Amino acid sequence: MSTGFFGDIKPVKYEGPDSTNPLAYRFYNPDEVVAGKRMEDHLRFSVAYWHSFAWPGGDPFGGQTFERPWFGETMEGARLKADVAFEMFTLLGVPYYCFHDADIRPEGKTFSESLGRFEEIVDLLGAKQKETGVKLLWGTANLFSNRRYMAGAATNPDPDVFAYAAATVKACLDATKTLKGENYVLWGGREGYETLLNTDMKREREQAGRFLSMVVDYKHRIGLKGTILIEPKPQEPTKHQYDYDVATVYGFLKDFGLEKEVKVNIEQGHAILAGHTFEHELATAAALGIFGSIDMNRNDYQSGWDTDQFPNNVPEMALAFYEVLKAGGFKTGGTNFDAKLRRQSLDPQDLLVAHIGGMDCCARGLKAAARMIEDKALSGPLEERYAGWKSAEGKAILSGKRTLEDLSERVVKKKIEPQPKSGRQEWLENVVNRYV
Amino acid sequence: MSTGFFGDIKPVKYEGPDSTNPLAYRFYNPDEVVAGKRMEDHLRFSVAYWHSFAWPGGDPFGGQTFERPWFGETMEGARLKADVAFEMFTLLGVPYYCFHDADIRPEGKTFSESLGRFEEIVDLLGAKQKETGVKLLWGTANLFSNRRYMAGAATNPDPDVFAYAAATVKACLDATKTLKGENYVLWGGREGYETLLNTDMKREREQAGRFLSMVVDYKHRIGLKGTILIEPKPQEPTKHQYDYDVATVYGFLKDFGLEKEVKVNIEQGHAILAGHTFEHELATAAALGIFGSIDMNRNDYQSGWDTDQFPNNVPEMALAFYEVLKAGGFKTGGTNFDAKLRRQSLDPQDLLVAHIGGMDCCARGLKAAARMIEDKALSGPLEERYAGWKSAEGKAILSGKRTLEDLSERVVKKKIEPQPKSGRQEWLENVVNRYV
Amino acid sequence: MSTGFFGDIKPVKYEGPDSTNPLAYRFYNPDEVVAGKRMEDHLRFSVAYWHSFAWPGGDPFGGQTFERPWFGETMEGARLKADVAFEMFTLLGVPYYCFHDADIRPEGKTFSESLGRFEEIVDLLGAKQKETGVKLLWGTANLFSNRRYMAGAATNPDPDVFAYAAATVKACLDATKTLKGENYVLWGGREGYETLLNTDMKREREQAGRFLSMVVDYKHRIGLKGTILIEPKPQEPTKHQYDYDVATVYGFLKDFGLEKEVKVNIEQGHAILAGHTFEHELATAAALGIFGSIDMNRNDYQSGWDTDQFPNNVPEMALAFYEVLKAGGFKTGGTNFDAKLRRQSLDPQDLLVAHIGGMDCCARGLKAAARMIEDKALSGPLEERYAGWKSAEGKAILSGKRTLEDLSERVVKKKIEPQPKSGRQEWLENVVNRYV
Amino acid sequence: MSTGFFGDIKPVKYEGPDSTNPLAYRFYNPDEVVAGKRMEDHLRFSVAYWHSFAWPGGDPFGGQTFERPWFGETMEGARLKADVAFEMFTLLGVPYYCFHDADIRPEGKTFSESLGRFEEIVDLLGAKQKETGVKLLWGTANLFSNRRYMAGAATNPDPDVFAYAAATVKACLDATKTLKGENYVLWGGREGYETLLNTDMKREREQAGRFLSMVVDYKHRIGLKGTILIEPKPQEPTKHQYDYDVATVYGFLKDFGLEKEVKVNIEQGHAILAGHTFEHELATAAALGIFGSIDMNRNDYQSGWDTDQFPNNVPEMALAFYEVLKAGGFKTGGTNFDAKLRRQSLDPQDLLVAHIGGMDCCARGLKAAARMIEDKALSGPLEERYAGWKSAEGKAILSGKRTLEDLSERVVKKKIEPQPKSGRQEWLENVVNRYV
Repeated sequence: MSTGFFGDIKPVKYEGPDSTNPLAYRFYNPDEVVAGKRMEDHLRFSVAYWHSFAWPGGDPFGGQTFERPWFGETMEGARLKADVAFEMFTLLGVPYYCFHDADIRPEGKTFSESLGRFEEIVDLLGAKQKETGVKLLWGTANLFSNRRYMAGAATNPDPDVFAYAAATVKACLDATKTLKGENYVLWGGREGYETLLNTDMKREREQAGRFLSMVVDYKHRIGLKGTILIEPKPQEPTKHQYDYDVATVYGFLKDFGLEKEVKVNIEQGHAILAGHTFEHELATAAALGIFGSIDMNRNDYQSGWDTDQFPNNVPEMALAFYEVLKAGGFKTGGTNFDAKLRRQSLDPQDLLVAHIGGMDCCARGLKAAARMIEDKALSGPLEERYAGWKSAEGKAILSGKRTLEDLSERVVKKKIEPQPKSGRQEWLENVVNRYV
Repeated sequence: MSTGFFGDIKPVKYEGPDSTNPLAYRFYNPDEVVAGKRMEDHLRFSVAYWHSFAWPGGDPFGGQTFERPWFGETMEGARLKADVAFEMFTLLGVPYYCFHDADIRPEGKTFSESLGRFEEIVDLLGAKQKETGVKLLWGTANLFSNRRYMAGAATNPDPDVFAYAAATVKACLDATKTLKGENYVLWGGREGYETLLNTDMKREREQAGRFLSMVVDYKHRIGLKGTILIEPKPQEPTKHQYDYDVATVYGFLKDFGLEKEVKVNIEQGHAILAGHTFEHELATAAALGIFGSIDMNRNDYQSGWDTDQFPNNVPEMALAFYEVLKAGGFKTGGTNFDAKLRRQSLDPQDLLVAHIGGMDCCARGLKAAARMIEDKALSGPLEERYAGWKSAEGKAILSGKRTLEDLSERVVKKKIEPQPKSGRQEWLENVVNRYV
Repeated sequence: MSTGFFGDIKPVKYEGPDSTNPLAYRFYNPDEVVAGKRMEDHLRFSVAYWHSFAWPGGDPFGGQTFERPWFGETMEGARLKADVAFEMFTLLGVPYYCFHDADIRPEGKTFSESLGRFEEIVDLLGAKQKETGVKLLWGTANLFSNRRYMAGAATNPDPDVFAYAAATVKACLDATKTLKGENYVLWGGREGYETLLNTDMKREREQAGRFLSMVVDYKHRIGLKGTILIEPKPQEPTKHQYDYDVATVYGFLKDFGLEKEVKVNIEQGHAILAGHTFEHELATAAALGIFGSIDMNRNDYQSGWDTDQFPNNVPEMALAFYEVLKAGGFKTGGTNFDAKLRRQSLDPQDLLVAHIGGMDCCARGLKAAARMIEDKALSGPLEERYAGWKSAEGKAILSGKRTLEDLSERVVKKKIEPQPKSGRQEWLENVVNRYV
Repeated sequence: MSTGFFGDIKPVKYEGPDSTNPLAYRFYNPDEVVAGKRMEDHLRFSVAYWHSFAWPGGDPFGGQTFERPWFGETMEGARLKADVAFEMFTLLGVPYYCFHDADIRPEGKTFSESLGRFEEIVDLLGAKQKETGVKLLWGTANLFSNRRYMAGAATNPDPDVFAYAAATVKACLDATKTLKGENYVLWGGREGYETLLNTDMKREREQAGRFLSMVVDYKHRIGLKGTILIEPKPQEPTKHQYDYDVATVYGFLKDFGLEKEVKVNIEQGHAILAGHTFEHELATAAALGIFGSIDMNRNDYQSGWDTDQFPNNVPEMALAFYEVLKAGGFKTGGTNFDAKLRRQSLDPQDLLVAHIGGMDCCARGLKAAARMIEDKALSGPLEERYAGWKSAEGKAILSGKRTLEDLSERVVKKKIEPQPKSGRQEWLENVVNRYV
């Protein structure tokens, strides 16, 4: 029973690389086995409720461009929105979706009213999940849009806001459990500062640590199986966000003893804003043992804000999924399209087309990455490059058996004058280009 | 016995704000007491040997512009360089200086030859310190200029380079001890990567951790009292440097259990390159308990590389020294001018003028900061802003006595609907402008 | 007859540098004569209607924070807004204000209805101008917020949008004439592209040229005395805006023969986004003969979007007003605060405080600039630096009397080997610091 | 008669997409006809003498890494360098090369000595051109490395430097004529400023205009057929360069009446530094009628300086060559690899491998672009999007037959309320992905 929103459209199918059908997959073939696993199970695609169904198309200089029949902050609208959302999930054949509390229900006049509405829609989503087989990749709470959070949620100067945020996250954790969500994400959009002049950074950091600890405790108490994920972002909307990037989050987790409990959800656009490539953040998380999930989009390299565009550059996707595969692939995580249409993309079909393009782009990237791994295209030369560290002396150094004096003596005695070897970067770049 | 390099110049004196003498201080008055301490003891100025005496004035598109009589990589040149350097320290009346091994001696053909030359000049510097009373703020090793380090020092794929770097650092630690240096700095200019394609980030991070641990061990073994400092920088010359920023260094130290042993030397220009303000990095280090010392310069806000200019913006200095004072001021650290003349500033006088301007700028900033603290100009409003956290409930939350359920229940029962209060940023900015 | 919005506040007065009254000027003293002119006549301050009275405090991740009694898009609200606006202009004692059509009236269902409402409020503003003596610095049309402009106004693929924009600008030019506006500004927030893939840049540029020509023609036809100003901005909200920076606008004006008709309104924040300092854009406009007016704000140097903060850095203001004075000062232009409160600055007083701080900052800058000019602090050394060009040969070269052959021959014959001279940048920076 | 530098290597051949031979082309097939022309004639590849043969591998924090037998600033070295250069051109099968005077000869003690050496090597290059069939794409003068140019060449405060630069350019134009160079390029690396404080921008702009006019005059006088090209760059090494970007250069050319005489040589990396995509700069030049040639490299999107890497992203190349083809393809211009090895790429083979990868990447891009044009993949939808402007009213507006009043009247009378249409960006991005 279609809502009619997408018109007379059939589920999107794989038609192969030569298809020119804008509503077909050319590379994403869910059942195709890549590196020993179905593509669907590798990529674990998820649609973001917020950008696709709640965002009105505004930007800092312009208002709503999208005219969706469900807009207007009513429960009726919320139900229609859910209908269309699951319709799209089904048309696309994605296995997962994600949402914030604020995406799925209109805000009430009080916390209790908001909660009541939330629970009502959560039940509806539960029913739709059962009906369609679509699953919840992660739940999350919107602790940034309402004016009460303008100066932070957990890091607010007012402990009542902390409490309000805590109550909200509790509700969202409960919902995530109810809906069998496989992860729970915290993005601290307001956990930072606009100006140091009015900010006690040390205190706010303590508040953030306390909050996260409470979340982890509660998760265990209710038996929620999903992974708790922090999503780093350096800034925007704030001037500085405490979860700046993966390395910063790691230090924070270590400080509060949570590095075994919490992982990261890495977004391409946030990596870019922090001055990193996406693959850098992925590799860092893997090296630190906290890789969890990804938010798939891209930022415009010439714009200094979070553009959240659908990915379209296959070579970049190949490098990203190369890191994902090297890290062992997703466990509970997945590939969530935290990407929004351009505000000029008004048509319902644009929603489908954007996801199809993004999914195909990821699929091409994944396949290229899998072949690079299979061929040891990069790992072979890497092994060779570091081969010296497998020597007895290399091992002795790394295992702590050498002091500065030992090494100094060896350099002097053995007249060591190391000769540099080519890093072969251009050749390796050419090798990658053989796969994309 | 002057070298004549600076011509017929008398030591630079404090002449007060109205002086128009380009070779006088207008604000830096070493003996003036600010916030209970002499300005000299607050600021602990240091001149960087490298930029002022070793840098030829080149940039990526142009070669040497400075014509210094000591250029040419000879021991004779090295001695003349030392003479002129101490002459300048004395003319300026700065209490400290800093150097890399490579700044003070010509590279030899072998490690041993380089070491011999180094030790010879270190002795000379020791004599000059005694003669002039100028002290060593910190020593450091140049592990980035020579081609042997092109792929990293501690993080090199070749363990022989690790060994060579270790031997070099040992020599520099020894020299630092000999010269009673108050700190030892590690800047990992090549400890990063050009491309992930040829990089094993996890392994390299282990190597870096091992190296740092060896340095800390050795320091204790030889009884060097100074603080070990890491100097964060996000990139340049590499695409990515492992010591990206203060928060990243903190995570790294925690990982290797060195957060009590090692602090940070924060450079304004590196903060800017990492997407932070200088005061942000200072405040972060203070919050994390690892604030050590500063490298004073400024980067051009419109240029994407490390311009290392002398500071000239007093309001910025006021905010920086406000953070330094809030952190308790320098212990072993100081204000090192890691700043270089523009390559068009050819004249010997330019060297003096640049330092004088920078020192005056810092002195004005310090005085403004001290008055802000005295007046509680910012701390008063701050205390008020976070007052809620001093309530019983606020304390209970922070001390771990509340769960998500507790808070949720309280929000519901007490019908908590927090009302935001003005952050008063513009007013606070106006307040600061009363002091600068 | 106060609206009561600002409470019981008296007009803001000059109290001198030592005042700690947050609602007094410490430097802006309208009648004080600086460089032969009253400060008010130099600075020609203007308040922006949009940020101060129409902006709800949202950002890309959060909604309204301000609760103003006039919000809600009604004519009654529009009238109250005008009352409060003029109340603030009067309290601050600013001589000017600026507005877009959309700031002052609620949008109607049709163009005609919007126009009727606009004209009604324009009459009201006219009456208020007469009553208070406050004048209109410039009028402008909002051709960017409504979804009809999402793909451009003059550069829209649909000529009907061009026509709609033209009709709107006509109404705004008419209103500007009615209200004796001293300038008319065009900011082409949507005149650019999101992606080249759907853009015919050459055609759109032609459209923009045609539109501007029509505006200039109409201005002359109705006898509007004010200057037509283009406000450059590189991007945001679009990926690329055709009026990227001053130099780009100049090329555009030359192309359409409008360089004598149109000048630029330069915004600090837009300069920063384009990779320039504010003073660079001012100096460029002066050099090209198209300097008109300024939009005064500042962008955050670490954020990649248009933060539109109130200025607070005096040294920067000194350099900016130095360029303004060098360009001969404002003719019809002025200093418009195109600056908005931070969204956490909720209180009515914050509006006053922000403007007071900004005005004081500009006044300090102006005074410093005037003294630098009086002392020839920078112009003296400049003249000396270029003295060679006053020689006979220098003049001959510049006036076109020398060919490459002539110069080549002279170099060879006279064995010219030019010797570089110090650029003395640090000394000049110190000189500036004597004034700020 | 091989120099042996590259060892025992055979000329690089096209082996097709499946080749894994690192020394074969997989896509560049000179004789293959694409869009009616041989690939070689489309792409007109050129090798840059400077990066490949003169650059020692340094960066701002490290010195020489490459050890080339011709290093050392002797005439013997210069001759060997030429031998190896032409050997590489021949091995690669590129039809063109480019050089600065300073790349090919050691600097002499006087202008005359330098000139004599230059002419000697120019003769040698002429002989080698004849021998190998390799041609000169463009000549240029190095007016930035020597300290005499530290404050500008044409824009120097000292007219003797202007004269010296003029003499140098004359020699290079003469050489370009001798060698039948098809273009002559001016890159004004020092034509800008480090600080406005010591700069008379208006005067320097006049100097630059005069210089360029002299160059154009001389070109005509000696009958040099090649195109004069300006290469825009926003900054680095200077803080600001007068030839900021294509639009800035256009305004400059218009000002001096040179827009029919001079075109632009657009570099990818410089576009990025100026805040543009490469394709933006290409499209702008085409729209303004000044598209000439390209410098092919890429900048690192996370680094703020000119990294000059070899291109490796095929989708980006497709968009770039799409603009080149739309602009009618190269006339006298070509694709010059102004790209340098990473400083760790020490081996002679790295030079070949880098060029092979870059050429293949361009070839893939070209082929994709040609097919997009053939299929009207983008131009078809574009035509449709702007169809309204082909209506009678659209044409009347653009041709100047409508006034603001006309359009206002039409909007009111016809009750025009334009309805936005989808910009279809994501769909167009998917379309492009069908070709790459």
